[in-house]
Amino acid sequence: MKLWLTGIAAFLSLQLSAQNLNLDNTLAYQLTESLTVEVGQRLAGSEADARAVAWAEKKFKQLGYDKVWVEPFTMQYWQRGQASLTVSAPFHQNLVVTALGGSVGTPFDGISAQVVQFDSLEQLKTATSAQVKDKIVFINKSMGKDKLGTFYGSVVGARAQGAVEAAKLGAKAIIIRSVGTSINRFAHTGIMRYSDDVARIPAAAISVPDAIQLDKMLRLQPELSLQLQMQNKLPGEVISHNVIAEITGSKRPDEIVLISAHLDSWDEGTGALDDGAGVGIVMATGALLKQQAQPERTVRVVLFGNEEGGLVGARAYAAKHADNLKQHVFASESDFGAGRIWRLDTGFGNNSLPFGSALQKKLAHLGIALGDNTASGGPDVSVLKAQGVPVASLQQDGTDYFDYHHTPNDTMDKIEPAAMQQNLEAWLITTTAIANSQLDLRK
Amino acid sequence: MKLWLTGIAAFLSLQLSAQNLNLDNTLAYQLTESLTVEVGQRLAGSEADARAVAWAEKKFKQLGYDKVWVEPFTMQYWQRGQASLTVSAPFHQNLVVTALGGSVGTPFDGISAQVVQFDSLEQLKTATSAQVKDKIVFINKSMGKDKLGTFYGSVVGARAQGAVEAAKLGAKAIIIRSVGTSINRFAHTGIMRYSDDVARIPAAAISVPDAIQLDKMLRLQPELSLQLQMQNKLPGEVISHNVIAEITGSKRPDEIVLISAHLDSWDEGTGALDDGAGVGIVMATGALLKQQAQPERTVRVVLFGNEEGGLVGARAYAAKHADNLKQHVFASESDFGAGRIWRLDTGFGNNSLPFGSALQKKLAHLGIALGDNTASGGPDVSVLKAQGVPVASLQQDGTDYFDYHHTPNDTMDKIEPAAMQQNLEAWLITTTAIANSQLDLRK
Ligand SMILES: [Zn+2]
Ligand SMILES: [Zn+2]
Ligand SMILES: [Zn+2]
Ligand SMILES: [Zn+2]
Repeated sequence: MKLWLTGIAAFLSLQLSAQNLNLDNTLAYQLTESLTVEVGQRLAGSEADARAVAWAEKKFKQLGYDKVWVEPFTMQYWQRGQASLTVSAPFHQNLVVTALGGSVGTPFDGISAQVVQFDSLEQLKTATSAQVKDKIVFINKSMGKDKLGTFYGSVVGARAQGAVEAAKLGAKAIIIRSVGTSINRFAHTGIMRYSDDVARIPAAAISVPDAIQLDKMLRLQPELSLQLQMQNKLPGEVISHNVIAEITGSKRPDEIVLISAHLDSWDEGTGALDDGAGVGIVMATGALLKQQAQPERTVRVVLFGNEEGGLVGARAYAAKHADNLKQHVFASESDFGAGRIWRLDTGFGNNSLPFGSALQKKLAHLGIALGDNTASGGPDVSVLKAQGVPVASLQQDGTDYFDYHHTPNDTMDKIEPAAMQQNLEAWLITTTAIANSQLDLRK
Repeated sequence: MKLWLTGIAAFLSLQLSAQNLNLDNTLAYQLTESLTVEVGQRLAGSEADARAVAWAEKKFKQLGYDKVWVEPFTMQYWQRGQASLTVSAPFHQNLVVTALGGSVGTPFDGISAQVVQFDSLEQLKTATSAQVKDKIVFINKSMGKDKLGTFYGSVVGARAQGAVEAAKLGAKAIIIRSVGTSINRFAHTGIMRYSDDVARIPAAAISVPDAIQLDKMLRLQPELSLQLQMQNKLPGEVISHNVIAEITGSKRPDEIVLISAHLDSWDEGTGALDDGAGVGIVMATGALLKQQAQPERTVRVVLFGNEEGGLVGARAYAAKHADNLKQHVFASESDFGAGRIWRLDTGFGNNSLPFGSALQKKLAHLGIALGDNTASGGPDVSVLKAQGVPVASLQQDGTDYFDYHHTPNDTMDKIEPAAMQQNLEAWLITTTAIANSQLDLRK
């Protein structure tokens, strides 16, 4: 396992020249900008991930947190290699393609095979091996847009499980239309899964314009061949870290109010929306909260590692803290971009619903309505919710989130400073209210 | 010189399965779609360019043109290689970069050097060699948006002449902020120039988000180094072609009304807006015009080759037809994307201005106003205008043109079918009016 010491040393030496932070309502934006400019992408397990961990420790200290520490965990490291996808005769065109996270590569010379198109994962599941065997499967399902990103769930299955379903039928590889809502020519990455009893075939995504293009080509020439080449690496186990910082509670320090985001990102953008924004928001929340007054309960900010690989840091956190999860009186995560918060959803005990209503009234001036009591709390926090920890979701407007999500286009310039201020204010009000309450939200 | 015969043979065999064309108001869109789907990118001089020429000949014949031929010309072929640009310690990030057209590559190991930023080409010109020597110059000038694309002219100089100005001061390479108006993370390519008496240094563009990012990094760390690697090739002279087709005039066949577009495109998108749309519009115009009635004058549709390399096909055309340019009674080009036409500009003799006004009245129902009499006629046609050929410009709304222009994102899905219909109708009205007129527009 590498420790990436050289990069981190070079990085820490920079901090002398780095900008000072102003503890005001622009703090979330400042932090997200600092992370994306000074570290950039931070693929879990990479040297950049280690620099992000060093960045987070440094910033937490600079922000005046009472305690700062890291918690290591072991993870499987996956590295993207170059990828290309070429349409053979008669069209001779290159399509914009990217490997799905976790995918094996192809042989060095690539895989050449006829392509067979399906409208969805569900349609693939009904296919016969005669249709699919020795071919490259292409799943061409488009995705709709709304505030909550509800269409993601119905499309992402092709990304997660497509390789297994295609391989069961003898496919040589699978490509999917990007799980995204933009017609810009970026391919969306994201984690995919293999099954131990099914062959591991390469899996990749093509951009939406390229999916439209390939569909048109197939209408003209149904017997079309593709050549896919990808050089991904799976170097094995490495150590990554959750980074944790606390503002110690003045009256009930053993009661933990956990707010969180994930520090890792995919490697092609700079992870500004996913999840640099969340990192900025929750780091700033703790700092401004302490500036107001020490909270009664302890506010713990957790920056989870390797969310993208499948909540790996969150599971490590839940395992390590299994014995004191009961002391976690609340948990929430910011991980849906940088749009304005428009709804408060809770996951409280029934007796605590009036507290949720009262909290919403404190948020109403920010344009935040009361939602339902089925909040997940966020991807990583859902692991804690499964263990009985009360949660809430400050729902962000994610209408444009999947225009950028998991693409090279997830960069800082997509973030509106005023929306970040609104997020910070909402998180500060929410965290303060819960940290200064005596209520047991489990009840 | 290669003749790319294999690709063309494979391509022509496809035509059996290709879609038939409907001669109606959707014809321009159909043609642009056919070109971008069946051929895709068509970098001048490449095998794909040869396939585009074969496509155009085939389609002109299919559309019922009276004569179809090609005119060869010699050109310098340039091929893009892989490009990468890395920010060194402490940031360790890759920026999205593309070679400018015509640029030499770097040595195989790349060029590593400190970066020095300028606001504009003009500021670079005032620099001293002490500031620039052995460095990589970075010109970070942003571009505004309007219907006419007027900001292009004030920004594109850095692309065209930056390498020469930087090399005069001893720079090792130059990178520019993309000449474009989008914050999507695409780098814009386009032709650049060398001067015989100045060293040829590599020239590249980074995307707008990357330019913003690099500027922020330089504020934190003014002594920043970059590593640029590019593997472009300059294989030398090849043959490309102008493709020409005519509807023969019924009464004055020797009088030529020339309408045009350029067939070549940059290599990273599919050249839908630049200039697939123009190709579709003018090819459809001639076909629908003949469908109505044979015109009195000859309507000649010219698809110029290698516009992107610097009007190479247009100059070859002007040279070859030097003796009968006087018989060219009119010329115009469609080469500004696929937005609606909103203004008619002319380049007529003063006696012909009433004809221009009358023509505008025939176009008014399409939302087209009368502009001025200083039209260029379009990039390629400006070469003919310089020889005294009367011209007009049917000005398209180019507000979003430079969001896509010369990027991988210039693809068919960006074109609105209804806008293409409006273009076709305007071209048909204009071409018909001039082809059936006896007026000498030179006067
Ligand atoms: Zn996320
Ligand atoms: Zn994600
Ligand atoms: Zn053009
Ligand atoms: Zn162009």
